[in-house]
Amino acid sequence: MNNNKGIIVIISGPSGSGKGTIVKEIIKHDRYALSISVTTRSPRVGEKEGIHYFFKSRQEFEEMIHRGDLIEWAEFCENYYGTPRSYVEKMQSEGKDVILEIEVQGALKVKELNPEAVLIFIVPPSLTELKNRLIGRGTEKEEIIEKRLKRALEELDMINKYDYLVVNDSIHEAANKIHTIVEAEHMKATRNLDLIEKIKKERF
Amino acid sequence: MNNNKGIIVIISGPSGSGKGTIVKEIIKHDRYALSISVTTRSPRVGEKEGIHYFFKSRQEFEEMIHRGDLIEWAEFCENYYGTPRSYVEKMQSEGKDVILEIEVQGALKVKELNPEAVLIFIVPPSLTELKNRLIGRGTEKEEIIEKRLKRALEELDMINKYDYLVVNDSIHEAANKIHTIVEAEHMKATRNLDLIEKIKKERF
Repeated sequence: MNNNKGIIVIISGPSGSGKGTIVKEIIKHDRYALSISVTTRSPRVGEKEGIHYFFKSRQEFEEMIHRGDLIEWAEFCENYYGTPRSYVEKMQSEGKDVILEIEVQGALKVKELNPEAVLIFIVPPSLTELKNRLIGRGTEKEEIIEKRLKRALEELDMINKYDYLVVNDSIHEAANKIHTIVEAEHMKATRNLDLIEKIKKERF
Repeated sequence: MNNNKGIIVIISGPSGSGKGTIVKEIIKHDRYALSISVTTRSPRVGEKEGIHYFFKSRQEFEEMIHRGDLIEWAEFCENYYGTPRSYVEKMQSEGKDVILEIEVQGALKVKELNPEAVLIFIVPPSLTELKNRLIGRGTEKEEIIEKRLKRALEELDMINKYDYLVVNDSIHEAANKIHTIVEAEHMKATRNLDLIEKIKKERF
């Protein structure tokens, strides 16, 4: 039996890479828990406290920042978004691998503070494919699509800071690849030093 | 499609850990090639050049050392044993993951020269189990068994220099765990920088 403590698994990738759908597929398995973000924005219709988000006031959020309660946080459109440490650690101690779907800057911040976190970058099979997916959504203007592709190219430069690269040929295969990575990570020697001590201390 | 270049996979573990049997199980798969050692000892009955070993004279072996033709080498009982670079690299370029079953000192030497090599340490479920396996063989004296257990304990101190730890509960499962590790390693970002360049250079 290898180490049971849950691993922080961070999934990033350009808009259109399919990461959201892959995450939905992964968390169908019991061994994973999806990290729930804290936000200061108002709940939308149907959004539930503790399921979709933890909703906080600006003052509460800022107190969380100062207490070091957040693994990472950022401000977008005058609202704060962050990842609460307590929820992640609770899931980890229950042996769940915790999935965080966050963007590159936040991901690198988490890795800096938690070097044992695993960073996975999802890429589409090609940029042409990415463009087709963005166009296919039909929700974005040409200008926004070009902006997102430019952003995707910039993000590709950060991949060498990630641990793994998963090509999203199909959702099912990409989810399986992530399971494979997480299984291998549980066998990392550095995650199993306790096991070694246990074997060594055994009387025989 | 992730990177196709074969990976050097080094498998070590104490005598009685079952590593030899696991290696035999792994190399049933086409994707793997077993590294063939060079030795100065005489062929035993049934041993064939280029299948079991590459047989060389002491002079030829020493020339290989001086030319840097060996990834690692050691001398035991007045015979040299080593891993020829050319064979390993040939297999890698054909896309095969190359399995090296070598002891701890040699393994760390290979890792030093080839940081991209993957070091896997096989441990039995417990030291009691290890002792039982050594006794079960029926070929070793009590004294030698004690010596091997002492050696095993010393080797356990080196595990933190290994990349992965695989507990050998059963041969089949242990072999599967090694496949999982190798699959994950192929997705390492550092092994796929070419793929990123390819995606970035694509015209769209």
